[in-house]
Amino acid sequence: MNREKVSIDLIYEPVREQLGVVDKKLRGLASNGHPVLSQLLGHIADGSGKRMRPAITLLASRFHPNDGDSPAAMGTAVELLHVASLVHDDTVDNSPMRRGLATVSSLWGRNVAVLVGDYVFAASAVCVCDTESVRVIRRFSETIMEISTGELMESLGAFKWDLTHDEYKERIYNKTASLFRTSAESGAVLSGAPETTIGALTQYGYNLGMAFQVVDDVLDFEGTQEEVGKPVGHDLLQGTLTLPSMLLVERYPDDNPVVRLFKGEDPDANRLRALEMVHNSSIIEDSYAVAREFCTEAASAIEGLPDTPERRSLHDLLDYVIARRT
Amino acid sequence: MNREKVSIDLIYEPVREQLGVVDKKLRGLASNGHPVLSQLLGHIADGSGKRMRPAITLLASRFHPNDGDSPAAMGTAVELLHVASLVHDDTVDNSPMRRGLATVSSLWGRNVAVLVGDYVFAASAVCVCDTESVRVIRRFSETIMEISTGELMESLGAFKWDLTHDEYKERIYNKTASLFRTSAESGAVLSGAPETTIGALTQYGYNLGMAFQVVDDVLDFEGTQEEVGKPVGHDLLQGTLTLPSMLLVERYPDDNPVVRLFKGEDPDANRLRALEMVHNSSIIEDSYAVAREFCTEAASAIEGLPDTPERRSLHDLLDYVIARRT
Repeated sequence: MNREKVSIDLIYEPVREQLGVVDKKLRGLASNGHPVLSQLLGHIADGSGKRMRPAITLLASRFHPNDGDSPAAMGTAVELLHVASLVHDDTVDNSPMRRGLATVSSLWGRNVAVLVGDYVFAASAVCVCDTESVRVIRRFSETIMEISTGELMESLGAFKWDLTHDEYKERIYNKTASLFRTSAESGAVLSGAPETTIGALTQYGYNLGMAFQVVDDVLDFEGTQEEVGKPVGHDLLQGTLTLPSMLLVERYPDDNPVVRLFKGEDPDANRLRALEMVHNSSIIEDSYAVAREFCTEAASAIEGLPDTPERRSLHDLLDYVIARRT
Repeated sequence: MNREKVSIDLIYEPVREQLGVVDKKLRGLASNGHPVLSQLLGHIADGSGKRMRPAITLLASRFHPNDGDSPAAMGTAVELLHVASLVHDDTVDNSPMRRGLATVSSLWGRNVAVLVGDYVFAASAVCVCDTESVRVIRRFSETIMEISTGELMESLGAFKWDLTHDEYKERIYNKTASLFRTSAESGAVLSGAPETTIGALTQYGYNLGMAFQVVDDVLDFEGTQEEVGKPVGHDLLQGTLTLPSMLLVERYPDDNPVVRLFKGEDPDANRLRALEMVHNSSIIEDSYAVAREFCTEAASAIEGLPDTPERRSLHDLLDYVIARRT
């Protein structure tokens, strides 16, 4: 798979107009309500995000004729949910920055960040009601449960170095792939597509989301601070075991720097040692292979769908997710 | 209005059986899922709450013939939402105890409390989907927005002593009365009652909720630490202006202990001075008069409904809310 950067704008081309509607809805939310709230929402919905989840919803809604507004409402809801979870995530992690911008918790304090996150969660839940589909609304609420379960498991399991691969997969499904899955599934449901199409796009979204998170975990080792927006090896310092560090623990069971770091021994030296050992092994390549397997599954899930620009975009998105550096 | 304690069990009698269903659903949630999560949920849904909001939903569903299960699902959702907001509230306030029990944030840390709160918010949103009514689901999500707006306004407005009565009312509507309103409104909607009945019960719920919060604010001055479960004058220490302290600021504009406390001058002495001045004035009585006005409005809203045991319970609940000490 080609690791050069595929232009995201080109991938979004079939749904460019509807993505504009989503952006307008997001800006509208920021300009309503209390002035202080508007400032906070303006800060977190400033358009610097890639809008990947709404794009997936919109693309997935194009495999059955429909002229409803509900995919754009859904796209807004999934983006808001993503933003809300980032706000609480940064609050829990005490992160000062996210993609070059100061976080809500660092600017206004953790208490405000908790409540702003709640507000945005709720705004996403109101937005999803505009779809008028109880099936989609329920799936959306289940996704919020899954995301918070994933974050909770990560938080409660911090500094544990004996995670199984199944536990790892369950956690990345909950914290990341669930929302990707729901983004694709809901687009298909709202278009009125038959169950086979819905099933295919649900599988696509699930696998894309799993690949996305594996790459995220690799970038924590491989990206530069400029690309990732946080220090290299940040997950290790947080006590979060990810695929590369799991493989490192498995392959070097004796005197392992990850285990030492998680035991609280000399975090700086052990972080650097872990990074060095990962880079001197095939762990990065092997982790990418896992991500690519998920992408292969995603591609095969939508193989039976008509060969349209939308399907080509969904394919290109798989390449993009593997090739991305940020 | 009689200030003796009216037995809450007697008030709940017409909906006792359905309240049992709600309790079972709440316990079911705690026993599902990850063991650690079950422990956390068991702790916060241990049955010590008064279940006032579900009781209102169930009572409000009895003014139109229906045999659906949706009011019990709704009752579970409103209780879960209440619990979720308490978890985040305690986290933001850094409260060690709530009604004699250690809070989630004090037992497991603030990070876990943020995520558990999110999980319970989401569980409430999944639960409300069991009603299959988009109207009720939307109202529910709007309520979450209103609650977080109210909490946010309280947090951002902390240590401001120049609150207007309208701002106070808006804040207590958002943080408390919105959910009481939704509890009553949704019961009526789910029963299939005509709009006039829905409107009457919505008004009832709104006014009951407003009275409830005014009494809460008075109990912060008037209750004992044993009754309220937190130190007397706790709101003042948090920088939260409530009806009694607002009246104190208005009536004694010169050299006011609330203003001094909010400016950071000798909190202990100024808190005691504020408590003393409130007790030596008619402020407690005047605040109760405001709560009673809301109860009069609530009673008059349901005057036109048939004189059933359920309506008598809704009336008795008004007395209970005024007379309550905890």
